[in-house]
Amino acid sequence: MMKSDEVRTFRDRAVEMLHGAGIVLTPEEAAGLEVADMGLGRLAQEGLELVTYINNDRYCAKELVIFAGQTCPEHRHPRVNGEPGKEETFRCRWGEVWLYVAGEPNASISATVPEASKDHYTVFHEIVLKPGEQYTIPPDTLHWFQAGPQGAVVSEFSSRSRDESDIFTNPEIRRAPVLTD
Amino acid sequence: MMKSDEVRTFRDRAVEMLHGAGIVLTPEEAAGLEVADMGLGRLAQEGLELVTYINNDRYCAKELVIFAGQTCPEHRHPRVNGEPGKEETFRCRWGEVWLYVAGEPNASISATVPEASKDHYTVFHEIVLKPGEQYTIPPDTLHWFQAGPQGAVVSEFSSRSRDESDIFTNPEIRRAPVLTD
Repeated sequence: MMKSDEVRTFRDRAVEMLHGAGIVLTPEEAAGLEVADMGLGRLAQEGLELVTYINNDRYCAKELVIFAGQTCPEHRHPRVNGEPGKEETFRCRWGEVWLYVAGEPNASISATVPEASKDHYTVFHEIVLKPGEQYTIPPDTLHWFQAGPQGAVVSEFSSRSRDESDIFTNPEIRRAPVLTD
Repeated sequence: MMKSDEVRTFRDRAVEMLHGAGIVLTPEEAAGLEVADMGLGRLAQEGLELVTYINNDRYCAKELVIFAGQTCPEHRHPRVNGEPGKEETFRCRWGEVWLYVAGEPNASISATVPEASKDHYTVFHEIVLKPGEQYTIPPDTLHWFQAGPQGAVVSEFSSRSRDESDIFTNPEIRRAPVLTD
């Protein structure tokens, strides 16, 4: 659970990081920027900040903000209603992001697995994305990501997004936000 | 038809404008940036510069560059192989873009219709996009756009792109490039 002042603080920091990366938001987008702690209550360690520009039944575009030390927990996008799971392209715009997907595990990785959830990170094939670099994650593929030392701004281009259908490895995760006040 | 030195000049200017807008390209993307004169041979008046980040059978993302005074000619994205035409969201990142779509025509418009092709511009419902503003064009809807006085950088998020199927109002248009040297 998140406190509303914590949400505000993280939202303000995310807006500032986007601004620093040259990305302009409308006032409404800035005010509505989503802060997701995945129900774990440790936002600085596991969570994500995002702006969804468009999400219709064909395509979706978002801007993701990940702070230094912050990790988006491992998950996959399954098939829904007979439609293949979400396919997504991550394009690093600013900073650096360390992405892990199913596949041959690296002998050592750049990220530090969050201690409190370490059993729920199981894929370790590393892809490092710097500004201008991108990677496309196939549908239904386990993945997680962590920002490098400055944090990261990542554009996500994808098929339709159905966050409520995402399957997280950590069974404690609730994708919808819960506020305590 | 375009001369290869003209293509190089427009490509270099487009890369510079993207850089000024804070958008990072890989060297390969910069070298491959597409300069499209639509076969009209008057690139400064009618044409477009673009980088395609991803285009698969589900979604597409591009960065469009339009110089001051440059117009992307009127066209629509028809149904292909039983699939609805391309739907696309234009998000202005830098500068200003004047977009015209089918619908109630404005009494006066911001753009200047290119004189040499003026009979091939038929829709005049104006949407002005400044940085952070966006608009979604439904499938199979006639549209054209022109940059404001500084030029414009526009992110395009869409369903699959099939440029070769686009239907332009001007029958002289050839979407695929033709080089003279």
